[in-house]
Amino acid sequence: MTSFARRAERVQPSAIREFLALAGTPGITSFAGGYPDASLFPMDELRGIYDALLTAGDGSALQYTASEGLPALRALVAERLTADGMPCTADDVLITQGGQQGLDLVAKLFVDAGDVIVTERPTFLGALIAFNPCEPQYRSVPMDDGGMDVDALEEVLRTTERVKIVYTVPDFQNPTGRTMSLARRRRLVELAEEYDVVVLEDSPYRELRYEGERLPTIKSLDTTGRVIHLGSFSKILAPGLRLGWALAEPEVREKLALLKLAADTQNGTLNMRAAAAYLAQFDVEAHIAGMLPTYRHQRDLMLETMAQHFPAGITWTRAEGGLFTWVTFPEGLDLAAFQRDVLIPRAGVIVVPGAPFFSEAPEAHHARMSYSGVPDERMVAGVRAMGALLTEALA
Amino acid sequence: MTSFARRAERVQPSAIREFLALAGTPGITSFAGGYPDASLFPMDELRGIYDALLTAGDGSALQYTASEGLPALRALVAERLTADGMPCTADDVLITQGGQQGLDLVAKLFVDAGDVIVTERPTFLGALIAFNPCEPQYRSVPMDDGGMDVDALEEVLRTTERVKIVYTVPDFQNPTGRTMSLARRRRLVELAEEYDVVVLEDSPYRELRYEGERLPTIKSLDTTGRVIHLGSFSKILAPGLRLGWALAEPEVREKLALLKLAADTQNGTLNMRAAAAYLAQFDVEAHIAGMLPTYRHQRDLMLETMAQHFPAGITWTRAEGGLFTWVTFPEGLDLAAFQRDVLIPRAGVIVVPGAPFFSEAPEAHHARMSYSGVPDERMVAGVRAMGALLTEALA
Repeated sequence: MTSFARRAERVQPSAIREFLALAGTPGITSFAGGYPDASLFPMDELRGIYDALLTAGDGSALQYTASEGLPALRALVAERLTADGMPCTADDVLITQGGQQGLDLVAKLFVDAGDVIVTERPTFLGALIAFNPCEPQYRSVPMDDGGMDVDALEEVLRTTERVKIVYTVPDFQNPTGRTMSLARRRRLVELAEEYDVVVLEDSPYRELRYEGERLPTIKSLDTTGRVIHLGSFSKILAPGLRLGWALAEPEVREKLALLKLAADTQNGTLNMRAAAAYLAQFDVEAHIAGMLPTYRHQRDLMLETMAQHFPAGITWTRAEGGLFTWVTFPEGLDLAAFQRDVLIPRAGVIVVPGAPFFSEAPEAHHARMSYSGVPDERMVAGVRAMGALLTEALA
Repeated sequence: MTSFARRAERVQPSAIREFLALAGTPGITSFAGGYPDASLFPMDELRGIYDALLTAGDGSALQYTASEGLPALRALVAERLTADGMPCTADDVLITQGGQQGLDLVAKLFVDAGDVIVTERPTFLGALIAFNPCEPQYRSVPMDDGGMDVDALEEVLRTTERVKIVYTVPDFQNPTGRTMSLARRRRLVELAEEYDVVVLEDSPYRELRYEGERLPTIKSLDTTGRVIHLGSFSKILAPGLRLGWALAEPEVREKLALLKLAADTQNGTLNMRAAAAYLAQFDVEAHIAGMLPTYRHQRDLMLETMAQHFPAGITWTRAEGGLFTWVTFPEGLDLAAFQRDVLIPRAGVIVVPGAPFFSEAPEAHHARMSYSGVPDERMVAGVRAMGALLTEALA
């Protein structure tokens, strides 16, 4: 067969995929998915909206539209971003195929083979998957409960050539659930300017805050146009619509739109019409507020059950929003092996072993666990069984 | 601002976009779009389908699904491809975000900067837009009414290093409407084997044949797995769903799926469910057959009106299907300039000037004209006005 391009070497099946394939199996309790809770999707409202769109006579809801996205949807997203401290207009917004496409487009725009992307440690696996075809090098910066360590970031920027992008998930990060402090957000913007790099702010969980105060986005602190802000309807409306957005300076937004045109012409017109109609006709803020108690309850139940049943020597993060907790086990415990050999066969429980979330120097003694959408009884039983097996393994 | 990647130089606004922006303006008659006729979309059937999908209780129609695409839809597409002479199963099919994403993914998989893609002359502009971020070089091969000149192709393959892909739209090509003969399809497959290249067969118009006999796809003649076949629901169902497919050998299909995961996670679940339901519940072949008389009539009316009103020295193709005719003017006439200075201001008519459809050595004295969706009276008036202005210009 004709040889693949060099970038294909960077495109390999992910360890996470085989576990996710198990998630649908009866008898398996999955803390692996990180999907939003499907019982919270506004089905009735969307049914009425699709019905109206497909009743209207001219077929335009099924026709091609602009590659930047439906103008009405761009305007409504711009309104919401403006209300969130990022003053902008429809022109500044690009509609993307979920947040994932924003990651792909930004990497394509800035990263030549060998350029450096700096990530948090750990970082969102899907972003690494999106970035890899551009053949970047990675550097990673430690985090704590205040998010990315900006002093460590400065050291990386000072000592590393060819850094193009600092990538962060500042709100309820996937996989750790951690949120970057305001002081660090400010310092990050300063460092980006000083070292001439782009900040890619990826914030799909931002609106799922169920305790504490909302912090300003990094984009809202940006005075020089170095920050690109990505968001998504996946967690506030439904992921199956594949709708997200990118907010960027005009020169960048225009190039991202051309890359979007090249990649897939446009998002689906019908889904964009539906999302615009939803935002225009319903109170999405109320819808989001209505979901939060469910996620808060699920988080609380998981963390309380872990506290009861996990043996000493294991720690985990407590997120103020989003879908995840990051669990750290004693250094000798390889979670991928433990899951394969013990957790799945003996308890039917799956988590996501943490190693793939590291852009460099992976650590095997972590796991990402999601509480989203797991029924109470099942969650308690799963965490308890996991605790028993961990107690045995660490004895 | 941080410098863009090198590939960004290859991502530039297309001349076609500014004309397309005019297409919605009142008083403009557009032969530029090449959109399918929106009055032919199966709105009622789709309304019922979306209603049922959003009534069902579990929200799974709005949840994430597999990045390769909804299994049921892959299976139904595989059935249709099998019936079209390409025996395959669901596993061989990747669902893409329209045909455009297939072009993007295939280029990413095979093309390093400087590798060569061979195209027809002229070729589909959208494909060049998709390929350009991979920084290819291009060679182009002349066509006649039997499609790509395979002797000329052989000469190119014999004399050119680093050819990775031969790209063709064999059925009712965009922009020429031409179809590749069976003998040339066979020869193309032989040459691909001899010169170790991939054939990328892009056939979104294939099912819109309104006269003559259907020819076997190039993929159906492929014995060594060198052909990748792309298709789309855009012209048989509706483009606003953004659904297409790629059929490829397992090793290639797997890599394309990983690139798809990287690019945008997956297609929209709801739209995939809807397309699968449409194929399962309705007779799509009958739906397609029902559309053909409209397109045939529109083609006939455009070509007849051109024959009556265009001056001597202008020729055009007669497509047996699809949406386009390719018009060739005397060599001195630059269609972009003529359109800007004469056709738009004096007749309110837009076409697509031909130069951007050439992957190398563009020629300015052609235009692509689409008859799809233009009401009869408007079409006759537009073509007649165009004829009068051409007569004046060429006098």
